Amino acid sequence: MENWELIIIGAGPAGLAAGIYGARSGLKTLILEGKMAGGTAADAPLIENYPGFQSINGMELAQKMAAHCRSTGVIIREFESVIGLDLKGEKKIVKTNRAIYEANAVIIASGSHYRELNVPGEKEFRGRGVSYCGICDGPLFKGKRVLVVGGGNSAVMTALYLAGLASEVKIAHRRSEFRAEEALVKDLVAKKNIEILWNTELKEIQGEKLVAKVILFNNQNGETREMAIDGVFIQVGEDPNSQLAREAGVEVDEEGYIKIDIFQRTNVSGVYAAGDVTNHPIKQVGAAVGQGITAALEAYGFIKRPYYKK
Amino acid sequence: MENWELIIIGAGPAGLAAGIYGARSGLKTLILEGKMAGGTAADAPLIENYPGFQSINGMELAQKMAAHCRSTGVIIREFESVIGLDLKGEKKIVKTNRAIYEANAVIIASGSHYRELNVPGEKEFRGRGVSYCGICDGPLFKGKRVLVVGGGNSAVMTALYLAGLASEVKIAHRRSEFRAEEALVKDLVAKKNIEILWNTELKEIQGEKLVAKVILFNNQNGETREMAIDGVFIQVGEDPNSQLAREAGVEVDEEGYIKIDIFQRTNVSGVYAAGDVTNHPIKQVGAAVGQGITAALEAYGFIKRPYYKK
Repeated sequence: MENWELIIIGAGPAGLAAGIYGARSGLKTLILEGKMAGGTAADAPLIENYPGFQSINGMELAQKMAAHCRSTGVIIREFESVIGLDLKGEKKIVKTNRAIYEANAVIIASGSHYRELNVPGEKEFRGRGVSYCGICDGPLFKGKRVLVVGGGNSAVMTALYLAGLASEVKIAHRRSEFRAEEALVKDLVAKKNIEILWNTELKEIQGEKLVAKVILFNNQNGETREMAIDGVFIQVGEDPNSQLAREAGVEVDEEGYIKIDIFQRTNVSGVYAAGDVTNHPIKQVGAAVGQGITAALEAYGFIKRPYYKK
Repeated sequence: MENWELIIIGAGPAGLAAGIYGARSGLKTLILEGKMAGGTAADAPLIENYPGFQSINGMELAQKMAAHCRSTGVIIREFESVIGLDLKGEKKIVKTNRAIYEANAVIIASGSHYRELNVPGEKEFRGRGVSYCGICDGPLFKGKRVLVVGGGNSAVMTALYLAGLASEVKIAHRRSEFRAEEALVKDLVAKKNIEILWNTELKEIQGEKLVAKVILFNNQNGETREMAIDGVFIQVGEDPNSQLAREAGVEVDEEGYIKIDIFQRTNVSGVYAAGDVTNHPIKQVGAAVGQGITAALEAYGFIKRPYYKK
């Protein structure tokens, strides 16, 4: 069993920021990440609101943060998934698909995953025309017709990104106004090849081998219609990756987000949480970074009990 | 009287991050700053822990953030000091040395100021050998002997910075271990021209026109001694710039820091606080940025009451 002072679960902005502060504070720090470092931030076509970078590709920012983190001495193990947690004792046990670790403190920064609509055809056509990530799959729809479903920042950003690739972009939103930043909405309205479908719900996705059409329902006039389409990008929010933590006794709110206080503490001693997996109200890269920093310094205080804290 | 939707007091990392999010959300946003944009972060010789920048001069990072903020449409008025606040009504009144403004919401991001030791000679020799900012005044002590007082990150960073300029650097700390990051302490110990004076308190600063010597007290063996010195850099922490907010009814803790909750709300409706002026436990650039973002999006929700928030 490998022994670490601090184990961070997840290598998104929160986990990487926590790693930088953990290692710089002198803690032997390991980050475990089931996919590649970067988190969902790496999926963003363009990030224009992380202070200091006026405009940067999400993947590029993720890579910069990961390189920064490694330069401080943190070990990041990618493609290593956590499959079990035992957090009750003084030593925290973290089980992955490859090994078992123990640590003096754990920071859960496991983020969130794309929410599904649960409409007929969604599962069947996933990867065959149904996608949850514009930057990952957008290039496959060059010159084709795509539909984005959703009304928040990520839906609007995805539509804007796809407008540079697809021939036509429709964005279907079940309400009559967006909840996205006004700067993004302005850009959206200005795009000639984007059409906004207000009060519109996606009811079904159909096709043969690949997506060919969708069934749309207008919740204002009650009309149902078919629309020929090549790709469907679903951007209707996220759910937290908190199941293992919950099973290990970490308290979550009614939507499954880990409850934290101003110190990023959970209800379990020595266990902190940061970023999109928490019930912090703001899901943004800069806010996740701030939480990761706080979690790491608080974990440091917990482990070393120096007079660091007043 | 000028009318704004959001007024942010202070243009450090918290204020600038809040500005970016305020303007991008479509709020007519003004930042008022008594000095230059950047806050105390701009005084740091080198910042190596803001995720995304492995190593950057504090002033350069501050300028990047200020430029980023201005690019979103925020107006930043520098060298305009807030001298009075009336926060009780629905419209918040902000009085400066130049004008009176009203706003729908206010974010207080006024930071902190260097704490003084209150020893004889400190006030008299300020600007004549006594300094609170290594990067501002260090170059004046090229080839000379300097003393740094303190034991936290800023004291250690200041000593490291001065070691590249001064001939000899002493660092006096009243305890027997630093509370700085281990990465910084390692660098400090490795420097040949830095001497660490443990358990040592500065009792008096003497000289004629300029600083010439200091009186030091060893709190372990009770000995007092004189030491010839050209410059004294005092780095013993900060106090919050919260006086005007306090006078306007904003609740502070026993040390004067503005009390906030997880939404960066103060006790006064429509008034938020972010960064070093708050009682948030972590005083770091990345943590201030996270708080600024949260404050701006919560203020946006307060002003617009959209269905932005779940």
